[in-house]
Amino acid sequence: MAEDKKIGITVKKEDNFSEWYTQLVEQAELADIRYNIKGFVVYRAWSTITIEKMFRAMSDELEKNGHMPLTMPTLIPEKNFHIEAEHVEGFAPEVFWVTETGNGNKLEEKYALRPTSETAFYQMYSLWIRSYRDLPFKRYQRGSVFRAEKTKGTRPFFRGREFHWIEAHNVFATEEEARNQVKEDMEMTYDVLYKQFGIPHLFFERPQWDKFPGAESTFAADALMGSGKVLQLPSTHLLGQNFSKPFNVKFLDKDGKKKYAYITCYGPAISRIYGAMIALHSDNKGLRLPFNFVPQQIVIIPIGAEKDKKVTETCKELEKQLKSYTVSIDERDETPGWKFNQWELKGVPIRIEVGPNDVKNKTAVIVRRDTNTKETVDLKSVTSTVKKIEKEFTKNLIKQAEQSFDANTVEASTIDEIKKALGDNKIVKCCFCNIDMDVTEKARELEEKVGAEIRGVRMDKKEKAKGKCILSNKKANCVVYIAKSY
Amino acid sequence: MAEDKKIGITVKKEDNFSEWYTQLVEQAELADIRYNIKGFVVYRAWSTITIEKMFRAMSDELEKNGHMPLTMPTLIPEKNFHIEAEHVEGFAPEVFWVTETGNGNKLEEKYALRPTSETAFYQMYSLWIRSYRDLPFKRYQRGSVFRAEKTKGTRPFFRGREFHWIEAHNVFATEEEARNQVKEDMEMTYDVLYKQFGIPHLFFERPQWDKFPGAESTFAADALMGSGKVLQLPSTHLLGQNFSKPFNVKFLDKDGKKKYAYITCYGPAISRIYGAMIALHSDNKGLRLPFNFVPQQIVIIPIGAEKDKKVTETCKELEKQLKSYTVSIDERDETPGWKFNQWELKGVPIRIEVGPNDVKNKTAVIVRRDTNTKETVDLKSVTSTVKKIEKEFTKNLIKQAEQSFDANTVEASTIDEIKKALGDNKIVKCCFCNIDMDVTEKARELEEKVGAEIRGVRMDKKEKAKGKCILSNKKANCVVYIAKSY
Repeated sequence: MAEDKKIGITVKKEDNFSEWYTQLVEQAELADIRYNIKGFVVYRAWSTITIEKMFRAMSDELEKNGHMPLTMPTLIPEKNFHIEAEHVEGFAPEVFWVTETGNGNKLEEKYALRPTSETAFYQMYSLWIRSYRDLPFKRYQRGSVFRAEKTKGTRPFFRGREFHWIEAHNVFATEEEARNQVKEDMEMTYDVLYKQFGIPHLFFERPQWDKFPGAESTFAADALMGSGKVLQLPSTHLLGQNFSKPFNVKFLDKDGKKKYAYITCYGPAISRIYGAMIALHSDNKGLRLPFNFVPQQIVIIPIGAEKDKKVTETCKELEKQLKSYTVSIDERDETPGWKFNQWELKGVPIRIEVGPNDVKNKTAVIVRRDTNTKETVDLKSVTSTVKKIEKEFTKNLIKQAEQSFDANTVEASTIDEIKKALGDNKIVKCCFCNIDMDVTEKARELEEKVGAEIRGVRMDKKEKAKGKCILSNKKANCVVYIAKSY
Repeated sequence: MAEDKKIGITVKKEDNFSEWYTQLVEQAELADIRYNIKGFVVYRAWSTITIEKMFRAMSDELEKNGHMPLTMPTLIPEKNFHIEAEHVEGFAPEVFWVTETGNGNKLEEKYALRPTSETAFYQMYSLWIRSYRDLPFKRYQRGSVFRAEKTKGTRPFFRGREFHWIEAHNVFATEEEARNQVKEDMEMTYDVLYKQFGIPHLFFERPQWDKFPGAESTFAADALMGSGKVLQLPSTHLLGQNFSKPFNVKFLDKDGKKKYAYITCYGPAISRIYGAMIALHSDNKGLRLPFNFVPQQIVIIPIGAEKDKKVTETCKELEKQLKSYTVSIDERDETPGWKFNQWELKGVPIRIEVGPNDVKNKTAVIVRRDTNTKETVDLKSVTSTVKKIEKEFTKNLIKQAEQSFDANTVEASTIDEIKKALGDNKIVKCCFCNIDMDVTEKARELEEKVGAEIRGVRMDKKEKAKGKCILSNKKANCVVYIAKSY
């Protein structure tokens, strides 16, 4: 398809994030938005490969922490939804319903395409969990979920009507253990989201008026996109006994008494995290991803091979030497410049160029995608140079993402200051008396005034409120973050 | 849950396959059939772990053969189905339809829960494929598909209304390349299904009256279950230009002309293959699986550890030595006998027992699940013994499965002989003049008379017809297999 279109992103990320993202997704062939159902997109090869690696990283972490996998059906009967009142109220407006089969056979009962699977899991948990010996009971599943959200538009990976996620549902004998699970979820989020995917984020306790339908408390990570808006990444919910009571998830405790269990659930939406990862790390040349998550790590480009056979030989030797990496030689009938652009667009971390002069001098040119720098090295140092870049690559991406993140949080103590900061694409922090239901009305008014959302109180770092509450003008008790969101 | 129920399968596989399978699935905790939608079951941890490994084995093989992954939406608009007439006619009766969202909002157009994804893939292929340079274009996806089959009942993994599969859709410039892809699919099936999963099978060209809706020809593998019935495992379809024409999948050829492409599709239903794998290899003690696909490879059982601390120490040393395997020490407060039974039920290939006498003699007892034999070895030989068993284990399972398979195919040249053989739970082979549409009526009559299906002509081995056609009494041209099926 090379000859059909020009390649390269034509706008700058810093000038027009939204258009830059759209072009990145199209030109690097990550997703195709032309599928003919609104809100559903096709993930192409390049994104599917990375998303699969991300699923494995997240699953490995969950298993290390004692979760086992299982597979629930994609459909949930309508009656299950009605068992917990807040839950059905929260999700009912977004459910896709299966109502018939074949050529017009109406089903006796409607089935929901799961928007989330609490009501499937806990029905089974009530059959499986019998005694304290079965607890803690930690399970996760990988699959897709469906929400008929009323979105303004679809942004591939960020928001859509089908997304690909993991959900973990854990059962405990005591509330304390359940609270510790929330902490473990936060730590897993940090270990995978930050250390592996390189995504700086804040972990919040959400305000009571913004929690998961049916939860006692909701905790969630927010990452800041280049647009100045935040994207909610994994969230974890303390459900307490809110679901175990209606679903009858009971256990015989050591004291011989039957008790309702405490439940938590955790939902890393891998396809959305992928969106955050590409939005954060990519630049005006195209895709960039942490080294372990790219579909291809190295490309070797022969230059002038038609005139000098030794160029091809040298490339093949290098390919052999580097076979512990994903590597290929690009021998297509295109100009070197076109190839450079395409592989930069596709986010290959290391490009090795070999031309007739290199063959003569026993050298190769190595270009890296983290720093966009170029270096001529001896052929015999290629492998060690690659190893060095491998070590530095993801760290460099994280460093760059962090600099931008740190520069974008500001404090505010008046509504005008909040408005100004949001206008500058910043996250704002300010003082609140609390984030309980009794301040809901005033908080909502504030959200409306400034056109952004109260994201919550930080969980990953204790912050002391020094000023006065922006709502009540009384002594503040917590620091709250406000941001526009996807 | 140990104290709640007795463990162990109470019927013999050879006496009552169907009941044996049901007990195996329940007692080894592979699936739970109590989910409250007919035909939908829950896959528990033990099966999900193995199925995940199987998905990876199949994906690796597909990628080795040049396929790249992608992810299509789970929903397909109704209009896509109507593009190819035979396809819609074949699948329409089995489709689950999404017709509304939220609290009763009717959709303008119905969406199908995909029963298979030709009509999603080829719509996108018509946008992506431009020239001969884009071909061959080989893609696969992993996901679940849904069919509202009118089954007599659900047998977990064998038959259900949601199954988990891979589908590959490949596009070629010529019919010859498409036919070669069918061969490659057959070879991949052999390499994964037989060599890795250990499932002996025959690969058939299906009769014309039994092909995939919209295909030119259908090819499929059949494995023989202990019940005397066959189970269709991967099938591959030569679609020719039947879909490329209505879906407009065209390419600009080297000669400057626009041509319709040739398409093939291949569908290994991993969850069903899992069913075949457990049905074939498991025995009256419980689950058995090829060594690389078990959730856990080794269990170490301390005996009398409460009296002798050195028992626990020795177990821990062994666990450390064997850490390249999935291994655990079972220190639960249960009798050794109960533990032996449970781990046999769960299909752990190697059990190591350590008691006070073993500590004294510096030995351990190793029990293997392929031969069900027991051996006392020196502590320092444990690792080498495990390595030896690892090498032999899957081979032994295959050998046992093959012996049973070979003993169960018989020839027949009259209808009475066919009936007798089927009654004895055999696959029958007999001579036919051909399997084209012009013998459909007679073939259907035969199927009705013997109460079984004509599965097709073998592709994996040329067989010469020696007798006369059982339908026409004329000179036969091919050997056809007849069997009861799931």
